Amino acid sequence: MKSLNLLFCAFVLFSFFACKKNPVTEPEKAKAVVSSNQEKPDYVLVIHGGAGTILKKNMDPETEKSITAALNEALTIGENILKGGGTSLDAITKTINHLENSPFFNAGKGAVFTNAGTNELDASIMDGKTQNAGAVGGVKTIKNPIDLARAVMDDSPHVMLSGEGAENFAKEQGIEQVEPSYFYTKKRFDSLQKIKAKAKQTGYLETYPDWKYGTVGAAALDKNGNLAAGTSTGGMTNKKWGRIGDAPIIGAGTYANNETCALSSTGHGEYFIRYAVAYDISAMTEYTDKTFQEAADFVINQKLKSKGGSGGVIGVDKDGNVAMPFNTEGMYRGYVKPGERVVKIYKE
Amino acid sequence: MKSLNLLFCAFVLFSFFACKKNPVTEPEKAKAVVSSNQEKPDYVLVIHGGAGTILKKNMDPETEKSITAALNEALTIGENILKGGGTSLDAITKTINHLENSPFFNAGKGAVFTNAGTNELDASIMDGKTQNAGAVGGVKTIKNPIDLARAVMDDSPHVMLSGEGAENFAKEQGIEQVEPSYFYTKKRFDSLQKIKAKAKQTGYLETYPDWKYGTVGAAALDKNGNLAAGTSTGGMTNKKWGRIGDAPIIGAGTYANNETCALSSTGHGEYFIRYAVAYDISAMTEYTDKTFQEAADFVINQKLKSKGGSGGVIGVDKDGNVAMPFNTEGMYRGYVKPGERVVKIYKE
Repeated sequence: MKSLNLLFCAFVLFSFFACKKNPVTEPEKAKAVVSSNQEKPDYVLVIHGGAGTILKKNMDPETEKSITAALNEALTIGENILKGGGTSLDAITKTINHLENSPFFNAGKGAVFTNAGTNELDASIMDGKTQNAGAVGGVKTIKNPIDLARAVMDDSPHVMLSGEGAENFAKEQGIEQVEPSYFYTKKRFDSLQKIKAKAKQTGYLETYPDWKYGTVGAAALDKNGNLAAGTSTGGMTNKKWGRIGDAPIIGAGTYANNETCALSSTGHGEYFIRYAVAYDISAMTEYTDKTFQEAADFVINQKLKSKGGSGGVIGVDKDGNVAMPFNTEGMYRGYVKPGERVVKIYKE
Repeated sequence: MKSLNLLFCAFVLFSFFACKKNPVTEPEKAKAVVSSNQEKPDYVLVIHGGAGTILKKNMDPETEKSITAALNEALTIGENILKGGGTSLDAITKTINHLENSPFFNAGKGAVFTNAGTNELDASIMDGKTQNAGAVGGVKTIKNPIDLARAVMDDSPHVMLSGEGAENFAKEQGIEQVEPSYFYTKKRFDSLQKIKAKAKQTGYLETYPDWKYGTVGAAALDKNGNLAAGTSTGGMTNKKWGRIGDAPIIGAGTYANNETCALSSTGHGEYFIRYAVAYDISAMTEYTDKTFQEAADFVINQKLKSKGGSGGVIGVDKDGNVAMPFNTEGMYRGYVKPGERVVKIYKE
């Protein structure tokens, strides 16, 4: 009888402690699964060059080679900064600059045309350490909009500037400006003519068959554990009425918080704004028992997809875990950390 | 001995079930506390007219009376729509129209002046049922920016339009436009001169002693259980470079989701953007065991306050619970539901 009582006692104690611990440690346990599998890397850089209907059958080998090279060059530029002990902010700025200067991506030089035949660029940047942020919308003469977004963050009391006002600020700050004609590329101009012809028949944007959500973005973790993210875009081909997409919207196109993660989005911007995609992934990482990678995948491949929103995000969390989920056919993407580099275009 | 064993048995069973239930029902229980105290009201409308350094000692009785009257009139307009079975979207639009047309609030007619001596207005609206949204930034000729935001939501494929492009869209949609001089009020123009003089001595904005974060906003729950929220503002006195604040940013100034809540923010917009305040409260309501009111209070009075961000939010959740937290001296605010009406200006 005594031993039976002892058994009961042991079971009671077990039940009691199991009960006490459960609500607290369940999320911790779930999060630990990912981190425990790998040591925290010294630095991480992850990038994207847009998502959309990117299919191997439609890609000529020459273009594929050039795009892969540009992504690799961008990664190398950022990695060199991070390797040398530079900040995540500097790494993503210079990485995005390289993508902005390439004609292959819809940002900077390669920006798409608006319905009016102009190029209107948006960008944003966020510092995970201070959670300060900068953004610009609808600028027409800024060679590298991410530099202007960074100047807004560093040298103005505001977070978001727009239009002519933003260009005046650029002038005051000595940010490089170019003639609007700098942004002319035959490919993008032809796209506008095609989409306009198509839109006449079938309505607006959505029905365009080889639609791509061009944007470039980067997120990084530096050796000091600081996260940062940034996004730059020419927006949507044929956009009208001063449309602003998710790229310059903190919480939609870009988010960074040293306590959670750093993210850059690319996709059908309107959906990314309505569902606050970048912040939602950060919030889910913070408030639920989902890991960063689970949260990013859930938001893109379930939440957003079920609402009809297409696109993807790239990001890195405070422990150096990388996520690059997308619900389109392809996404120009890649990441680098010590001893590991990946560049991909299509679905696996 | 037998009775002792029975006692152990009962305790074991109790521990076991308490343990099983705990992780699942803790949040449910916490949420139920609020809802169980009161039946879900038929409809709810909650409004604000800005937060800031609003102190009784600085207010003349005449102005206080006029502001209280304007808030009450706005509530009555919206309540009549909700009472008659109208939608939350219609109720908040018409309620905000009334506040936009009053010279007492920093939105529409009473908009503050930019550094350049112009008036640049921002607004946004969100439908909790469809989670569709509309926003405009930096418009100069729109009498009621909330109407234009609604047209963007209802009649364009975009969520956010800006500047001249947005005004062209307004023209196409037949939204009422006015001469920029419509927005002239002596009080606001004098404020600009005062703040400019002050800024010369002490730096930018922050040091202005009687700074007020003027904005108007409304959130509502209608008889069909649909939530909606909207925000309209003239921004910050002395703002420069096409600055866009949180009012037109979905997730910062405005958010609505039938599954959680509807919210409108007012405050130092830069902080509200960086911390995605409106979406954060919705996410916290959805992902944590905090009730809507606890989440709203936590974000405004702890999270935001600890970062130096001042302002407040008003909102209503899917069960009709009202929250109106603010961390400034005062906030013009009020709500109405069947048999209950509250209008307040100062801290309790």
